Amino acid sequence: MSLQQVFDHLDANMSTYKTRLSDAVAIPSVSNSQETEHVEATRSVLEDYTRCLLESIGATVDMREIGDNQEYPPVIFATLGTSASKKTVLVYGHMDVQPAQMSDGWDTEPFAMTTIDGKMYGRGTTDDKGPVLAWINAIEAYQQENIPLPVNIKFVLEGMEESGDSGPLQDLILSEADGFFAGIDYTCISDNYWLGQNTPCITYGLRGIVYFHVNVKCAKKDLHSGVHGGVVYEGMAELCAILNSMVAPNGDITITGINRDVLPMTPEEEASYGPIDFNIDTYKSELGVTKLTHRTKAGILQHRWRYPSLSIHGIEGAFSDAGDKTVIPAEITGKFSIRLVPDMDPQKVTNLVKAHIRSFHNSTGSENEVTVSTTASAFSWLGDTSDANYTAGKRATVRVHHKAADLTREGGSIPITLTLQEATGASVMMLPIGSSDDGAHSQNEKLNVSNYLNGMKLLASYMYEVSQLAAGR
Amino acid sequence: MSLQQVFDHLDANMSTYKTRLSDAVAIPSVSNSQETEHVEATRSVLEDYTRCLLESIGATVDMREIGDNQEYPPVIFATLGTSASKKTVLVYGHMDVQPAQMSDGWDTEPFAMTTIDGKMYGRGTTDDKGPVLAWINAIEAYQQENIPLPVNIKFVLEGMEESGDSGPLQDLILSEADGFFAGIDYTCISDNYWLGQNTPCITYGLRGIVYFHVNVKCAKKDLHSGVHGGVVYEGMAELCAILNSMVAPNGDITITGINRDVLPMTPEEEASYGPIDFNIDTYKSELGVTKLTHRTKAGILQHRWRYPSLSIHGIEGAFSDAGDKTVIPAEITGKFSIRLVPDMDPQKVTNLVKAHIRSFHNSTGSENEVTVSTTASAFSWLGDTSDANYTAGKRATVRVHHKAADLTREGGSIPITLTLQEATGASVMMLPIGSSDDGAHSQNEKLNVSNYLNGMKLLASYMYEVSQLAAGR
Repeated sequence: MSLQQVFDHLDANMSTYKTRLSDAVAIPSVSNSQETEHVEATRSVLEDYTRCLLESIGATVDMREIGDNQEYPPVIFATLGTSASKKTVLVYGHMDVQPAQMSDGWDTEPFAMTTIDGKMYGRGTTDDKGPVLAWINAIEAYQQENIPLPVNIKFVLEGMEESGDSGPLQDLILSEADGFFAGIDYTCISDNYWLGQNTPCITYGLRGIVYFHVNVKCAKKDLHSGVHGGVVYEGMAELCAILNSMVAPNGDITITGINRDVLPMTPEEEASYGPIDFNIDTYKSELGVTKLTHRTKAGILQHRWRYPSLSIHGIEGAFSDAGDKTVIPAEITGKFSIRLVPDMDPQKVTNLVKAHIRSFHNSTGSENEVTVSTTASAFSWLGDTSDANYTAGKRATVRVHHKAADLTREGGSIPITLTLQEATGASVMMLPIGSSDDGAHSQNEKLNVSNYLNGMKLLASYMYEVSQLAAGR
Repeated sequence: MSLQQVFDHLDANMSTYKTRLSDAVAIPSVSNSQETEHVEATRSVLEDYTRCLLESIGATVDMREIGDNQEYPPVIFATLGTSASKKTVLVYGHMDVQPAQMSDGWDTEPFAMTTIDGKMYGRGTTDDKGPVLAWINAIEAYQQENIPLPVNIKFVLEGMEESGDSGPLQDLILSEADGFFAGIDYTCISDNYWLGQNTPCITYGLRGIVYFHVNVKCAKKDLHSGVHGGVVYEGMAELCAILNSMVAPNGDITITGINRDVLPMTPEEEASYGPIDFNIDTYKSELGVTKLTHRTKAGILQHRWRYPSLSIHGIEGAFSDAGDKTVIPAEITGKFSIRLVPDMDPQKVTNLVKAHIRSFHNSTGSENEVTVSTTASAFSWLGDTSDANYTAGKRATVRVHHKAADLTREGGSIPITLTLQEATGASVMMLPIGSSDDGAHSQNEKLNVSNYLNGMKLLASYMYEVSQLAAGR
């Protein structure tokens, strides 16, 4: 076989692949189990769009319902090839996206893909519709060149990743450990990004997460701040105090005991940050910040990857429109999340946060109703970069990019990673194709045309290298 | 003349007055100079609805445009009677309302008035469409009973009160001090509420206000909290810290110097709180709180009326929907306001707040862009309860309610009060008709049918008493 033939095919068919991505972006599959409209759009992108594509490359598609009723979109289990002489690679991806609207500050309509200067703008282009399509395109290229696919492929494609509500999917995967997930040799996930814009990466670690809602109820209905201001333990004042009591403006988490289980740094790990291609000024410029909370390359990477962080996302129930409103909101919910690292335990962290907030609330003298709940939680994850799965990824990277991949970790959380490792009992690797400036979750999310194309070549090469290693080459 | 004849007429025509109020509520005249739709609805309630009613009672209506273009609804100047032998009473009111939608937690459609158990629910029923219509209904009753109106009336009715953006109206009023506002003997405003649900009030004081926006920009676009959390001076953490640095959960304002100009309590003032009909338990029950920041009747009333308060209203630009979003918001604006009391100066307060925030920001080590602006400001106001205007109000109250009015102050701010006092050079009195539990600015705003009817009788009586006092009776 000639991998070059596959590469040439991919080069020649980019307009098809771009149209394919544009069609996927046009389905506003915003992740949300609360709103029927969003569930329906996500169901549609999976059932009507992705399923057709998978069947067109010959995959056997099994749509699996999750949850108790119609509140969740289905999950795709698809199988392509069952040859006993080939390794089986499990591909995970998701077709749901973060919310987006023009009023958030997009320059182009988020659900109408727009290509400008080699960048394909649109919600989901890089997270994660583009990478999912890159797999399908790469496989199709083998087929259309009449080259046998070097591996068996199984797909797990879902529609709830961005909601953080992956419980039902995890239950399904674990229940199928001896079914659909039996016989899988390697798992490969393209759902993250390079560290910068120039050097490809292979990612072997993820932070976990616990997402918290802290609800403060100070009155039975919203109050006029003129009429009642001065005698009420106002919920917003207490909520701001609670949030401020947990995290300093410089990012330090001030919850007692929170760092107790963070693994100490080894000299080997400390040394591993040195070779990584990461430019602080470029990074600052990408973010549009003049000062970071840490100054050295190692310090910055460590605080994104191997130390916990706490982010306050917003407040539900307070006045959030433009203009003025002289209201004392009666009931508000602060949303924040803590990213977890080895060996932090989500349940322990939840307990520490709840104890902290209870104790803080008691110190205020307020009798407001304060309740804390969690909506998502996941352990952190670390892979073994010396196994065959990673070796295939490293070889594929050199083949396409003519340079070695940086071995990186990710600050984000993909809870399914650990679940897949547990269900398959096999190696999981993250092989990103997007660039650091793609803006996942942000305004003007994009995927570079070049990253889309090279990503397809990378995944095509990875499948080839898996088969070569299996053959002892 | 027989005032009883007017009362009987009002009793007999309640269905007409309820329909009138329902028609007014149905026009969603939400106060906002930023949104054309809202400006148009407010323009309509003034031009199409209120103007017709005023002309039907024989008033000469002059629609006055304010501001530079179409961004503001007009102001109504109306004149009814110019007899040199009668006193002239200026009536102020507003036909704009606070925002409202079912999703805020209303039990009935806010812009479709619904009467349940003697309570008329709907946005604007009590604030301030009901009171404005009560004036018109009371005047119409005199006319339909062929009783000469005992006073000349001038109306100033506006559509920007709830936005806090009263600058253009204040400019217009001051420019007409020697025009429309010449020859006015008394001003009477029904735009506030009784202190409780049983005893009518006359209100002689208002707090002022400065409304602040504090904007924090930490990045050029929203960031993924997993990917970047840990190295960014996150705007939400800094904003919560800033807000928390200014007000404690118990309501104490912790801005240096803020209380410097608050007038000290005199023994006379201290004594004045004793006789007021105010039940702490009823008040707590109305608000739905178990504990207030002050325990005594005097302490509670003083902190609503004669001490400043700081309320945090909400945050624009952060995640405010239901569900989860793992975002670090790039640019957010905290909205808060401080209520001012004699002798606090809005400009001095603004300077103190800006200095506090600047100093606090500098202490954080953050290089985020932090800017503070004010969108509304007004001095506090105090009237003289011994003058003839107040005497007429007291007499009218006894006539309708068979008990003396409590003399109260209000925690809210009606900047126009001071402006009218300045432009007319005459006494201003607030004569509320609504009950403390009406829920202005809140969900399920209502006006009791009985308060609406008694309010009309009160205003009819007030006009009569003004004429009696003028005749030396």
